[in-house]
Amino acid sequence: MDIEVLFVTGNRHKVIEAEAVLREFGIRVKPISVARKIEIQHDSLEEIARFAAVEAYKQVEAPVLVEDSGLFIEKLNGFPGPYSSYVYKTIGVRGVLKLMEDYKDWESRKAKFVCIVAYALSETDVKIFRGEAEGYISFDARGSSGFGFDPIFIPQGTTKTFAEMSIGEKSLYSHRGKAFRAFGEWLVKSHTNKWKSL
Amino acid sequence: MDIEVLFVTGNRHKVIEAEAVLREFGIRVKPISVARKIEIQHDSLEEIARFAAVEAYKQVEAPVLVEDSGLFIEKLNGFPGPYSSYVYKTIGVRGVLKLMEDYKDWESRKAKFVCIVAYALSETDVKIFRGEAEGYISFDARGSSGFGFDPIFIPQGTTKTFAEMSIGEKSLYSHRGKAFRAFGEWLVKSHTNKWKSL
Repeated sequence: MDIEVLFVTGNRHKVIEAEAVLREFGIRVKPISVARKIEIQHDSLEEIARFAAVEAYKQVEAPVLVEDSGLFIEKLNGFPGPYSSYVYKTIGVRGVLKLMEDYKDWESRKAKFVCIVAYALSETDVKIFRGEAEGYISFDARGSSGFGFDPIFIPQGTTKTFAEMSIGEKSLYSHRGKAFRAFGEWLVKSHTNKWKSL
Repeated sequence: MDIEVLFVTGNRHKVIEAEAVLREFGIRVKPISVARKIEIQHDSLEEIARFAAVEAYKQVEAPVLVEDSGLFIEKLNGFPGPYSSYVYKTIGVRGVLKLMEDYKDWESRKAKFVCIVAYALSETDVKIFRGEAEGYISFDARGSSGFGFDPIFIPQGTTKTFAEMSIGEKSLYSHRGKAFRAFGEWLVKSHTNKWKSL
């Protein structure tokens, strides 16, 4: 299988993580930028990704992949959620740790990372793939791999933060790894079916 | 002068504040809702309001008013900024006070409220009016008028928070009062000019 998909993103970390997963399916990732990447303000990541995928499709006029993800902290009512990137740029890891200061036990530090991969095949046909990683907000920032809030998120089943993992290890646990694996499986299957139906 | 403007909003506080200012200009405010109020994710309030106004115009097919505002805290790199409403709903006043806990002097608690009023006359002609209120984040929440972060914002020139003021008093100091006054002046002038040119 040799397939190439166009991935609309300006984040090289996301490209590397997508490649690490999709390579196994024989899928190559081509990062592209569009003139206007429109992300709407919405509490649902899925709606944001769906809208962005359709807008990108209109500009590229070919099937395109869009990804959106966010960190949802239970005791903060889902904050920073869909606005994780803006929150990272402003108050950062330090700000989120400050907000969590009064939550002293692991149970109260529960959080999840969610990733939505939206693949627009036309202006009206958008396939959605969702990946979630449940875990906890650490008490200190640890590690220097990855990006964003990776240094303060410990997925369930390990004691490391995402930023203490290699890309391969992170992909096993991560929301992004799961969403891209679901996408890869679907894409391979749909290509195989197309082949069979010829 | 008797003019009516259509104001796309679901926030009754904003309608009341707009009315308090525009009444003086002989302008009536008619709140309306549109099927899809689209707010893009953008660090510039002006771009968000402009986009929303054009989208609303397309649906209403008549001149429409859209307002967007945000609280920008200097030491938090402008946070919560364009996402003030989401931040209010999640971490709230308490969260913002927590983030400001280590800033003990007034100088380091500087903030400003910004309001953009966008009036779409067509899909391409959008008039923008901006109002700013400079001030400080209070050490405690005070007052119960207004909405959002009003209980923790003290505008320059007073010792009261916005939430300790009547609507009339708040409008004298507020970002929203200033933006709507600028809009009111413009609208009255443009109607008068239209009359003169007949």
